[in-house]
Amino acid sequence: MTFNQDSIDQAIGVLKQQFGDRLSVSRSVREQHGHTTTRMPNQPPDAVIFAENADEISSIMQTCHKLGCPVIAFGAGSSLEGHVNAPHGGISIDMSQLDQVLVVNNEDLDVVVQPGITREALNDFLRDSGLFFPIDPGANASIGGMAATGASGTNAVRYGTMRDNILGMQVVTADGRIVRVGGRARKSSAGYDLTRLFIGSEGTLGIITELTLRLQGIPEVIAGGICSFPNLHAACDAVIMTVQMGIPVARIELLDPLQVRACNAYSKLNLPEEPLLLVEFHGSAISVEDDVKRFAEICADLTHSPFQWSNEPEQRSKLWKARHDAYWAALALIPGAKAYATDVCVPISNLASCVEETIKDIKENGLTAPIVGHVGDGNFHVLPLAMPDDDAMNDKISAFAKRLTTRALAFGGTCTGEHGVGQGKRDSLREEMGDAVDLMAGIKASFDPVGILNPGKVFN
Amino acid sequence: MTFNQDSIDQAIGVLKQQFGDRLSVSRSVREQHGHTTTRMPNQPPDAVIFAENADEISSIMQTCHKLGCPVIAFGAGSSLEGHVNAPHGGISIDMSQLDQVLVVNNEDLDVVVQPGITREALNDFLRDSGLFFPIDPGANASIGGMAATGASGTNAVRYGTMRDNILGMQVVTADGRIVRVGGRARKSSAGYDLTRLFIGSEGTLGIITELTLRLQGIPEVIAGGICSFPNLHAACDAVIMTVQMGIPVARIELLDPLQVRACNAYSKLNLPEEPLLLVEFHGSAISVEDDVKRFAEICADLTHSPFQWSNEPEQRSKLWKARHDAYWAALALIPGAKAYATDVCVPISNLASCVEETIKDIKENGLTAPIVGHVGDGNFHVLPLAMPDDDAMNDKISAFAKRLTTRALAFGGTCTGEHGVGQGKRDSLREEMGDAVDLMAGIKASFDPVGILNPGKVFN
Repeated sequence: MTFNQDSIDQAIGVLKQQFGDRLSVSRSVREQHGHTTTRMPNQPPDAVIFAENADEISSIMQTCHKLGCPVIAFGAGSSLEGHVNAPHGGISIDMSQLDQVLVVNNEDLDVVVQPGITREALNDFLRDSGLFFPIDPGANASIGGMAATGASGTNAVRYGTMRDNILGMQVVTADGRIVRVGGRARKSSAGYDLTRLFIGSEGTLGIITELTLRLQGIPEVIAGGICSFPNLHAACDAVIMTVQMGIPVARIELLDPLQVRACNAYSKLNLPEEPLLLVEFHGSAISVEDDVKRFAEICADLTHSPFQWSNEPEQRSKLWKARHDAYWAALALIPGAKAYATDVCVPISNLASCVEETIKDIKENGLTAPIVGHVGDGNFHVLPLAMPDDDAMNDKISAFAKRLTTRALAFGGTCTGEHGVGQGKRDSLREEMGDAVDLMAGIKASFDPVGILNPGKVFN
Repeated sequence: MTFNQDSIDQAIGVLKQQFGDRLSVSRSVREQHGHTTTRMPNQPPDAVIFAENADEISSIMQTCHKLGCPVIAFGAGSSLEGHVNAPHGGISIDMSQLDQVLVVNNEDLDVVVQPGITREALNDFLRDSGLFFPIDPGANASIGGMAATGASGTNAVRYGTMRDNILGMQVVTADGRIVRVGGRARKSSAGYDLTRLFIGSEGTLGIITELTLRLQGIPEVIAGGICSFPNLHAACDAVIMTVQMGIPVARIELLDPLQVRACNAYSKLNLPEEPLLLVEFHGSAISVEDDVKRFAEICADLTHSPFQWSNEPEQRSKLWKARHDAYWAALALIPGAKAYATDVCVPISNLASCVEETIKDIKENGLTAPIVGHVGDGNFHVLPLAMPDDDAMNDKISAFAKRLTTRALAFGGTCTGEHGVGQGKRDSLREEMGDAVDLMAGIKASFDPVGILNPGKVFN
């Protein structure tokens, strides 16, 4: 893919007329819209436009389609695989001004929002309605970005991922058409499922300008608890039995011994340096009590450590402190280090073995790399640390990340459970999906024949 | 779209060499593979091949792609919108020989099956494992057909539709490539969601030759119950409150007064001729008791009729008899009549109004058309009846069906919740989705440039 700098400059010239001060070419603004939150080198766009509505985005796309100028949608910049970098230059569309809640339908448990709203802002807005949007990827990401990357997080085991929680969208196509996909009905068999096709397409098929989301009632009772296990297999067996028994756990997280040690140091805790499971249950007082009781019985069969739990917000938060601080605790293992955040996902029957082999790999190669998992889904994150200037260690980490992906595939898993492909996992995508990548490329060519939508992502 | 009969005959000649007796051109076999279960006129293919594996299907596709011969995958023939008709002739591939369960992964709650297995055969096979596949469209459809049409049914409100319960598939493309999409991991952000794109594509994008399905644990306790309501709004309010309170109802079905009257006559029941809700709860003894109690409280607020329920299989089955016999009871309203089965789906806040207007339309036009709804999703079926030779009535019904679709769209709904587009709703798809249909057509052209996969379906 090659783009002509003259054409890009021409597109920026045309759009400058239209957007005035809302088009910026300042270095700091451009760098802020290249990637900043990951190991990826920053690749700033040539210009940033702060758009305000779908019509403006349609107009940008028409100009860029005609002239052949790359376009990258920018939400909150919290993605982890270089999704918002501009390796081919072009224009970044900052979506943060499209941050409105358009309609709340209480009876239907749905809401229509603009893509720039963050999930925390949305949930603040919804609080008085007794409803909430459950997907929680950790970062305060924008809803549009979460849709574009197919985000999920800690409570996907109960509520699903973005793919399960978006009913419909408005999308601007590469050539500037404004189309609607999906709708407000809970289900539909009307033609191809374009909604799910756009979800996780990482800005390469269209720009999302509106979303209809499924909401959940805020649970009457939330209980949180923790339990240590003598080894990974015992912890993972507890997860498997929980799922098999149909206990509707809302979150079930694993910390490996190194992550527990990091949390003890950072958050001044006293947890045994063993695999730790953290769980959360949502429901009525009676159903949560039943869930807790059944989960406690599972733990009693698999570990001598107590299952501690509470449905008091403060006490619950204390029990979950290790998880809440996990990222910062991990970073503090090597002061000044940067983290190379990566994720894979495997069938849960293979989770213990895959994590065990990964820890062995980490130890053999002298890495510092704690592990946190959304284990109800078999999804886990490894966070290898290195000083930014330690080239030898950074090379070691890159090689480790490649082995991790290959290992996950060998265990019947996927190269990414929730971070997406972006720039970082394009080779892994082909390794995992084989010829299916050609079908994806066919869709890309059909939707975006000039190739201007987020070039250099997903595909090599 | 035009196909050349000589080319079709040539393809059949080539394939006859390969398949011998497993390629049939007998009239009865061909007619049986045209549509038989609906109002659609039968349009038989030119030949039927009983394939045994993906390699054979790949070979059929290569031949048909080269020569330009239509190919239609045939599962159990239970779809309702003319999906398996052959309006352009060609070859029907009968998938019933691909009926094996390949792997059951107990710990991961998944199973790998061939597409020709029916859902009842699969659940019989699974029974001893304590697991089941929850999607229940009523008919004993094949799993491949259910995937191709994006089927759902009575318990989608709890377990989702086919879109939510397929992890991965093997698919043969139009030109005969065998590709894998999705996998066995519970979630993945690896590239475009081709799995969900093939689900509901009605055989127009590829032939599904293997599926990995999510399973559920057979619930410890199942409770069933029924309650009559003075009017549709009260019944629908009960549904809305149930969903809002997060009661994990497994099925929640509505019968309209005419359907209740039909059931009273057919199944010798004594139900009040008022809107009737039938519910089912799945879970532990304690959680089901809690669900029943909370649902009973909702009913008490909205109706004077009692909520009758049981967790004894026999008694439960008796309570649900009206629902189990509903289809036959409806047909018995006019002995000898044929039913024009149609479905739409609307946001549940609009369900009562949409059903009310529909009943008014039915009465005003002198139709006999009972209504049954999967109301937790806002999905309902209307079953207008007519004698096969009553042309005037059949014309009236066609006009009614068109109004029903337009009405559902006006209420923010979709032209089909679970039956699919097939031949019958191609105009409605454009009415509903607008320009998004062009994006769908672009995908179709990319996956099947010769247009041989199930031509005349989904698109005009």
